[in-house]
Amino acid sequence: MIVIPERDIVRLVSAADCLMAVERVFASSARKMARNFPVIREAIGHADALYGFKSGFDRENLALGLKSGGYWPNNASRGLTNHQSMIFLFDADTGRCRAVVGGNLLTALRTAAASAISIKHLARIDSRVLGIVGAGHQSTFQLQAALEQRQFEKVLGWNKTPEKIGRLAKVAQERGVPFHAAGLEQLCASADVIITITSSFAPIIPAGLIRPGTHLACMGTDTKGKQEIAPEIVGAATVFTDEIEQSISIGEAQHAFTQGLLDPAQIVSIGDVINGDHPGRRSMEEITLFDGTGVGVQDLAVASAAVDLAVASGMAIEIDA
Amino acid sequence: MIVIPERDIVRLVSAADCLMAVERVFASSARKMARNFPVIREAIGHADALYGFKSGFDRENLALGLKSGGYWPNNASRGLTNHQSMIFLFDADTGRCRAVVGGNLLTALRTAAASAISIKHLARIDSRVLGIVGAGHQSTFQLQAALEQRQFEKVLGWNKTPEKIGRLAKVAQERGVPFHAAGLEQLCASADVIITITSSFAPIIPAGLIRPGTHLACMGTDTKGKQEIAPEIVGAATVFTDEIEQSISIGEAQHAFTQGLLDPAQIVSIGDVINGDHPGRRSMEEITLFDGTGVGVQDLAVASAAVDLAVASGMAIEIDA
Repeated sequence: MIVIPERDIVRLVSAADCLMAVERVFASSARKMARNFPVIREAIGHADALYGFKSGFDRENLALGLKSGGYWPNNASRGLTNHQSMIFLFDADTGRCRAVVGGNLLTALRTAAASAISIKHLARIDSRVLGIVGAGHQSTFQLQAALEQRQFEKVLGWNKTPEKIGRLAKVAQERGVPFHAAGLEQLCASADVIITITSSFAPIIPAGLIRPGTHLACMGTDTKGKQEIAPEIVGAATVFTDEIEQSISIGEAQHAFTQGLLDPAQIVSIGDVINGDHPGRRSMEEITLFDGTGVGVQDLAVASAAVDLAVASGMAIEIDA
Repeated sequence: MIVIPERDIVRLVSAADCLMAVERVFASSARKMARNFPVIREAIGHADALYGFKSGFDRENLALGLKSGGYWPNNASRGLTNHQSMIFLFDADTGRCRAVVGGNLLTALRTAAASAISIKHLARIDSRVLGIVGAGHQSTFQLQAALEQRQFEKVLGWNKTPEKIGRLAKVAQERGVPFHAAGLEQLCASADVIITITSSFAPIIPAGLIRPGTHLACMGTDTKGKQEIAPEIVGAATVFTDEIEQSISIGEAQHAFTQGLLDPAQIVSIGDVINGDHPGRRSMEEITLFDGTGVGVQDLAVASAAVDLAVASGMAIEIDA
């Protein structure tokens, strides 16, 4: 059994590695070769924690297992990350546990990879302005991965509490891209690509602000009740997602779906675009929207990449189990 | 993070350790302090394997996590156990993965502990003859743990394919208890305690064979459709279980329940007996029946015991994660 501690992930796995792994498993999912098992999520009645699993199997790449962990809101006061997770890979041929891989950074990287993949395949080629709504911890990962996908000349950022916006400015600066804090109207009026990455339970972007031709990557909504944008925007856009069932139940599309503004049969698996089975964006005026809900096979894909890289570089800790 | 490989479990954990741990978590469950999360079980479409999780949280003993693994029917031909599992414990205060513990032997021991606990609390004190129906790999664990609970003077064993009965004879012999292979009628007519541990999908023990005063521990039925004894026996017995919901859905009681022979409100949590909140056996004539379905918190309990013992003995492999 191979163990890759959390602390080693940063040296082992790049954003590009994760993009490749996630793109591959999205493609596999669209071919019905990878699937997620039911998600378990439970309030445990201790430390205000939410605990659970995301799991699945990618038959094409033989990645089987789960990510387990959750949200411990009191961790920050102890100097620990509130989100804690570990990924466990099982050998699909024998059922033996193959690897135990720290899941905190990988979760951030795989979430960033998903929106980056959506930009790669759905944003207008001439996209020059990137908007980011939300400046929490995860936002910097989304920004970094997004900047690789188009020749962005400017980044506009918005956050409910403006003090936090500095962390986005810092990332843009490191990449040599000008950054400006912006109001929501200004952001939507200028941005060609908008990533939303908040934990909002009410629409932040109202109907009418989004310009034709915009690509939206809604990455914050992963629970019943969460919402980042007006359902009318979802209803008017061509909607792509990592998993259609999650999209209409816990993703950004849940509200447009329950309000009858979106036919689930019209939602496109992002993997179909990757595979060339769907054209993706069809015009310069179309609004494309990626509803990134986060799936178990995505976690398995990046953990498998970490294991391969650890083995190749001799950094894997092997335990004779 | 602590790792306890499968190979170390045999040196670390005794049947008595497991009995104590399982008894404690059954008690905790009956006090509503421990609960199991939904079970995931999936045919993965590869290697004919069934893969899944049992998970839960014991708030009293702060055991949080899951057992993951499954059934790989082609393993035996490669010299591996068909049932493969690993238990992952999480720190209830922080959500960090605390331990990774080999789950194969622990699963056998915790299943044996459950029937032994039922014998301890429900069998007549004067029980002298133990019957075992089923002589598969798991049966030897059930026999060993059961022999500790009463002054058994004789063991009678039955198996569909009689050649396998030798493994039960060997265990009884090692404990100095006479063993006889027996027909089902003879076994039921003589045994004070009967353990069923098969993977049958049709009743093996027909109605009418079980004598008044018998204690039955039905341990083989853990899936919809499985069945070891006639539903009339279940209907006539006082039924105890590890988890009432599982008992009527995937346990031995499922058939009596669906046939209207058993009111779920009459099923007793074995923990209530351990806690002294239910008297258990009320007469020398009563037929008591324990429906052992196997629950996640039981796996967490024995894995926690293994971790405590490994730490105390210096055998724990610690990884700085």
